[in-house]
Amino acid sequence: MSADDERDVRPATSSGSSRRSFLRGGAAALGGAALALGGRSAWDAAQATEAPAAPPADADGRATVPFRGPHQAGVDTPPQSFAAFVALDLADGVDRDALIRLMGIWTDDVDRLAAGKAGLTDTEPELAQVPARLTVTLGYGPAVFTAAGLEDRRPSWLRPLPAFDVDRLEDRWNDGDLILQVCADDEVTVSHAVRLLVKEARTFTTVRWVQRGFRRAPGTTKPGTTMRNLMGQVDGTRNVDTGVDPGLVWHTDAAGGWLAGGTSMVVRRIAMNLDTWDELDRAGREQAVGRRLADGSPLTGTAEHDEPDLEAKGPNGLDVINPIAHIRRARTENAAERFLRRAYNYDDAPGPGELSASGLVFVTFQADVDRQFVPVQRKLDEADLLNIWTTPIGSAVFAVPPGARDGEYLGQALLEA
Amino acid sequence: MSADDERDVRPATSSGSSRRSFLRGGAAALGGAALALGGRSAWDAAQATEAPAAPPADADGRATVPFRGPHQAGVDTPPQSFAAFVALDLADGVDRDALIRLMGIWTDDVDRLAAGKAGLTDTEPELAQVPARLTVTLGYGPAVFTAAGLEDRRPSWLRPLPAFDVDRLEDRWNDGDLILQVCADDEVTVSHAVRLLVKEARTFTTVRWVQRGFRRAPGTTKPGTTMRNLMGQVDGTRNVDTGVDPGLVWHTDAAGGWLAGGTSMVVRRIAMNLDTWDELDRAGREQAVGRRLADGSPLTGTAEHDEPDLEAKGPNGLDVINPIAHIRRARTENAAERFLRRAYNYDDAPGPGELSASGLVFVTFQADVDRQFVPVQRKLDEADLLNIWTTPIGSAVFAVPPGARDGEYLGQALLEA
Ligand code: HEM
Ligand code: HEM
Repeated sequence: MSADDERDVRPATSSGSSRRSFLRGGAAALGGAALALGGRSAWDAAQATEAPAAPPADADGRATVPFRGPHQAGVDTPPQSFAAFVALDLADGVDRDALIRLMGIWTDDVDRLAAGKAGLTDTEPELAQVPARLTVTLGYGPAVFTAAGLEDRRPSWLRPLPAFDVDRLEDRWNDGDLILQVCADDEVTVSHAVRLLVKEARTFTTVRWVQRGFRRAPGTTKPGTTMRNLMGQVDGTRNVDTGVDPGLVWHTDAAGGWLAGGTSMVVRRIAMNLDTWDELDRAGREQAVGRRLADGSPLTGTAEHDEPDLEAKGPNGLDVINPIAHIRRARTENAAERFLRRAYNYDDAPGPGELSASGLVFVTFQADVDRQFVPVQRKLDEADLLNIWTTPIGSAVFAVPPGARDGEYLGQALLEA
Repeated sequence: MSADDERDVRPATSSGSSRRSFLRGGAAALGGAALALGGRSAWDAAQATEAPAAPPADADGRATVPFRGPHQAGVDTPPQSFAAFVALDLADGVDRDALIRLMGIWTDDVDRLAAGKAGLTDTEPELAQVPARLTVTLGYGPAVFTAAGLEDRRPSWLRPLPAFDVDRLEDRWNDGDLILQVCADDEVTVSHAVRLLVKEARTFTTVRWVQRGFRRAPGTTKPGTTMRNLMGQVDGTRNVDTGVDPGLVWHTDAAGGWLAGGTSMVVRRIAMNLDTWDELDRAGREQAVGRRLADGSPLTGTAEHDEPDLEAKGPNGLDVINPIAHIRRARTENAAERFLRRAYNYDDAPGPGELSASGLVFVTFQADVDRQFVPVQRKLDEADLLNIWTTPIGSAVFAVPPGARDGEYLGQALLEA
């Protein structure tokens, strides 16, 4: 704003020079993505001298989750404390080339942000200095395949879920052409990453909906503690471990299809009626799930990870775990129908006459939505005590492409082959 | 739900028995507040056997901030990572007796929650086990004085702020008869406390608005690090220290009035236009405030806490710190006009056509709103570069009663004397 400002120009930092080397030699590594950077290089050159120094080594929040690899991060990553789910719609005229450009930009941004570095066009580079285990997980809605002219590659399950009786879906929480799941152990980090990614995509997309979610903050519970939802339940005890059952989550296409190494993501916004829930006595609440509130132990056991005994009868001859308790209905005899749950709490401002407006951003990952998620959701729709207090108000399904290996951009296997 | 449930009843715990002793002997200590508990004792007796044991000693998140004392907590408490500001309106017919009952209930709840214990009627007692430095700070809007028939005790500054040219206030973020500022280093803790307090007040109040805010999560920055807002600025460098200047924050009424030990709270919701902000170059952004983005140092210094030199001229003879830079306009020659800022970031879902909807829940505490806050806000209204990118969209003023000492309830000095 005045000539004095010159004084503020800092000497080029390591991150400044890595930007320049990216501009010189890095384009090839990004393949088609480099196209998108053409128009930004002048801007970038101007900014290069202004980048802040590398993040201070003495600060905390320095933990990172590797971005590059066969799978995207944020799926079997131990859940971070905070999440934003951002659904976007494609602008008119976005075609395969434009999608490739967008993927290149996002890949580069996420690669940097996950490492605690500012994005190339980052105007708040200091906010990037606390990676706090940041992961960004990208998913495609059906429209990506239409826009790319690749309808034949759309997984058959990539469409809205069938209607369920329990659903009271509101369009403002449904569907989307793209999703970004942004998770970190810090909310400022999440906000900054979301803003950068949405801004970078502004000519390609518009925001359709955003859902923010939280779990206990880092350091407030011992690592490995199962989260509690806002009904007070221990939630997430029995879950899929990709170390043991990788095939339940990661798509393995014998034919080597583009989704190999990818997965699918279901995002259901499920409202809790805490007013009626709180009217129920404690025993009733424990019956609804089949587990104790104090420690998540099954009603037939004493510790959280005890295997529930579904056959056990009480003195009166009745099932100890109610015939339509949530855990009885949600578990499936068919081991192939399991999926990974990775939910977050939400707590909105209450509407008129309400005391609270809380629930779960219920998120699952599975290799095949129709074979894994739908049968279980159908069973719960038929009978589940928890249905009395929970109502799905939003629903969306996405195909999550495999990870970007070195030199690749996200979605390359789909868009380039 | 079935006879089996009996099995789940746990032996009385220490927290269960402290509830009973409260019901036996604690009523006197609470004064008028005990009235409110009459109807709850049956319920409470039924619940007493179900309370969970004391919080596990091995978990983290155990830090507490003392609730009892001459001042309310949450004012000069080092800011926790998360906050909810809940404005409530009084139901028709709430009079002084009803207010005393409500104060008694809330006092007891906050006393327990701040110690990591469940509230008396807490239906999710496990969620109370992580106090994470929970504080609840209560404030009164003008209507409390009308309802209590104590108009003569209403501080003269307790009314909506004068209109400012920069204001674009939306009624949904304005005013309120009561406020609860709920802060903790954990969002689940905040949600749980808010729900309990709102639920306890359901016959007395309705929720008017809720604003959630965040700073860096615990452990992601070194303790004592000044926060960054979503414009990327180091925000909060120069602030009032109640250890040095208690009289700027705590009301000291020579006449021993009810507000002695209390303060006032201004809550302004200030939207940031990050799109136009991000178009400005870095030097321009630093000029707007008069401090550097990298480390918050003044443009005339090298370290965050260096005293800015407002007289310094650049080589061209112009002021180094712009004549209408935010820090020049916000500081005041009159040392008595300073106040304590305690702001939080907010980041809402963007509306149609927006990329983001972020800003500050800008919160200040001062002994006298008219003498401290208003003159500074007026100066900023006249001229402040930051006004180009920031817009107040909500405004509310509250009187914050003194703390509750042992045996007192919040607001007792106002309501009982
Ligand atoms: C707000 C809604 C929901 C709440 C509050 C909730 C809560 C719980 C809780 C407390 C448990 C027991 C602890 C555990 O193993 O995680 C559980 C288990 C489970 N839930 Fe849910 N749940 C909800 C919705 C759903 C939905 C919609 C599905 C599937 C479509 C689902 C599938 C499962 C599965 C598969 C299990 C594990 C069952 C087992 O193998 O024992 N839940 N849920
Ligand atoms: C979104 C709106 C605002 C933003 C982003 C903002 C940001 C900042 C920043 C970055 C600083 C410099 C660092 C510091 O000392 O804290 C500052 C200082 C200050 N701000 Fe603001 N501010 C905003 C609104 C306000 C308002 C509305 C007021 C008063 C009504 C105010 C009063 C002050 C004061 C008193 C200082 C310290 C000045 C000094 O003594 O050097 N600010 N603000």
